[in-house]
Amino acid sequence: MTDSNAPPRTLSVELGQRGYPIHIGRGLLDDPDLIRSKLGKGRVMVVTDTEVAPHYLGRLLAQFDDPAYVVLPAGEEHKKPEGLTPIYDALVATGCGRDATLVVLGGGVIGDMGGFAAASFQRGINFIQVPTTLLAQVDSSVGGKTGVNHPGGKNLIGAFHQPQCVVCDTATLDTLDERNLRAGLAEVIKYGLIEDTAFLDWLEENLPLLLERDTDALVHAIARSCEIKAQVVADDERESTGRRAVLNLGHTFGHAIETLTGHRDWLHGEAVATGMVMAADMSRRMGWLSQDDCDRVRCIVRSAGLPVTPPPADSAEFLKLMARDKKVAAGRIRLVLLRALGNATLEADYDDKHLHATLDAALD
Amino acid sequence: MTDSNAPPRTLSVELGQRGYPIHIGRGLLDDPDLIRSKLGKGRVMVVTDTEVAPHYLGRLLAQFDDPAYVVLPAGEEHKKPEGLTPIYDALVATGCGRDATLVVLGGGVIGDMGGFAAASFQRGINFIQVPTTLLAQVDSSVGGKTGVNHPGGKNLIGAFHQPQCVVCDTATLDTLDERNLRAGLAEVIKYGLIEDTAFLDWLEENLPLLLERDTDALVHAIARSCEIKAQVVADDERESTGRRAVLNLGHTFGHAIETLTGHRDWLHGEAVATGMVMAADMSRRMGWLSQDDCDRVRCIVRSAGLPVTPPPADSAEFLKLMARDKKVAAGRIRLVLLRALGNATLEADYDDKHLHATLDAALD
Repeated sequence: MTDSNAPPRTLSVELGQRGYPIHIGRGLLDDPDLIRSKLGKGRVMVVTDTEVAPHYLGRLLAQFDDPAYVVLPAGEEHKKPEGLTPIYDALVATGCGRDATLVVLGGGVIGDMGGFAAASFQRGINFIQVPTTLLAQVDSSVGGKTGVNHPGGKNLIGAFHQPQCVVCDTATLDTLDERNLRAGLAEVIKYGLIEDTAFLDWLEENLPLLLERDTDALVHAIARSCEIKAQVVADDERESTGRRAVLNLGHTFGHAIETLTGHRDWLHGEAVATGMVMAADMSRRMGWLSQDDCDRVRCIVRSAGLPVTPPPADSAEFLKLMARDKKVAAGRIRLVLLRALGNATLEADYDDKHLHATLDAALD
Repeated sequence: MTDSNAPPRTLSVELGQRGYPIHIGRGLLDDPDLIRSKLGKGRVMVVTDTEVAPHYLGRLLAQFDDPAYVVLPAGEEHKKPEGLTPIYDALVATGCGRDATLVVLGGGVIGDMGGFAAASFQRGINFIQVPTTLLAQVDSSVGGKTGVNHPGGKNLIGAFHQPQCVVCDTATLDTLDERNLRAGLAEVIKYGLIEDTAFLDWLEENLPLLLERDTDALVHAIARSCEIKAQVVADDERESTGRRAVLNLGHTFGHAIETLTGHRDWLHGEAVATGMVMAADMSRRMGWLSQDDCDRVRCIVRSAGLPVTPPPADSAEFLKLMARDKKVAAGRIRLVLLRALGNATLEADYDDKHLHATLDAALD
């Protein structure tokens, strides 16, 4: 469903001098002023990939005088240090200087890579995020995390670099396949679980509309997700207090699933969805959630068409993969758990038996 | 001359939460507390190169419990994105996490590379600079500029990343060859020219002692140089106001010389030395310096055993190479010139005839 008169929404990420607006609405890609008002004096370089370019590159380029662009091969396998070379080469070849602005058009992979190229070219140039997947619109384009993968781990090489603005055009979701739409919803559900039970109520009611891509529902879901993420990021921009870690609800379990399946068979959002169900189960065993709360989590994940059970695995091996997480400190796996629905915390002090019971039950 | 009872000096770089101390003295590499007091809880990874490792790596490693290290091939030709791979690989292979500290032992190349690896690994880990050349001690280790080269230009890929501390052990200069010692003095002279005529007076008197590597003289020269640089950096950490650009006195002329000679025949400090003489000449033509001031600049550069004349070149070609400088804005070459000795400013508004006259005279 694409007809709507819903006005676009604008949120602010409050980070002092590095604060920036997030614009959300249908058709924003055709608004000539949103992005142009954020450009410096220098040249514009659009970075996108081979999947997104045919749909949206031409429309975006039409907004700028004499823009340059570079189209990267699509796919997470190109998200590595060498993958940045075409961006740097294009910036140099087109005479982009410190006053250039890099506009990143695409999903999470292209956003992370383009953002890191912007962070590191000439020690940092301006950039603008134009995310074209639901996952990127509610998650990776907000918060300033940029980077590439290393064989030793995802996003091991990167920088914190905040954009000048984020433009989420819900019309770009028209070309998103069903499975990726659902995977993006996993992160939307996450925001309700960690921070906002009213939003969770709203989601339970409006999931069907979201799955139909109703514009009003999408704008609300994206806006509320970005608001919650922006608030958490403003509280802890560089992950120094542990507060920002709550955004990783389900991710430690999820990363183990992704590694177990070679980062091929499961989408990130799918792994996070199952991870959230597992985190809820463990939170119940800790005595924090009721069985009813737990059923609610499982039910909303399932209603979004997302998996609630991990792939078959040995629980000792699963545990070993969880221990590779970046949140491990002093040899202890720190887990984001739910003290209640809408109240996530990072926990290191838990009884291992609850973790083992969760793994045994899920991997049974 | 290496015997001295001069106490070590400690300066502060005032950058709020990112401020840090610079320690300068003979034998500091053997002081177990200086560096150890700045380490986090995590692992120590020492990064050095094949030239420096035989002299100082063992002594530095002896200070830490279970340190890891990586030895890179020496030479500016390795200062490129791929050159960082061994550092990232070593960090991953030794299980270094966000709480690790990277200790960078070497000259400017290794400092820039190690610093950028620290800036980008896990989106930024702590690092400590232990510069072992005079150039690195007075220049590249202070101010937080890190990075690698791109075929399109030096230091085009990098980050601003401030160290936890800088340890300048003047004893490491014992193994520095004469030519590199003199090249380092070019930057020391620069600080007198841009900011402090009393320091310039002191240098004119004490150059012989510095060339003999007298400890007291070295400690004073390094400390005063770092003080001036730290003050300029504190005023303009990210080169946003133009203030920091004064540190580039002689560099726009110098970069043209380096490019002209393929970055092989001239050391950076040598090119900067000649560049400062050319900048002084142009400042005289602008009516800001007297002939006597100009002679003073030429004389101190010559006394340090540094070149005062560029290599033979066509002045139009020289100008074209100068126009590749990062300080070019709106197509105009901005030059650091001297309003007076001890008073450098960044100038875009000058009569081109003075620049042409300087080039014609120097390249005659």
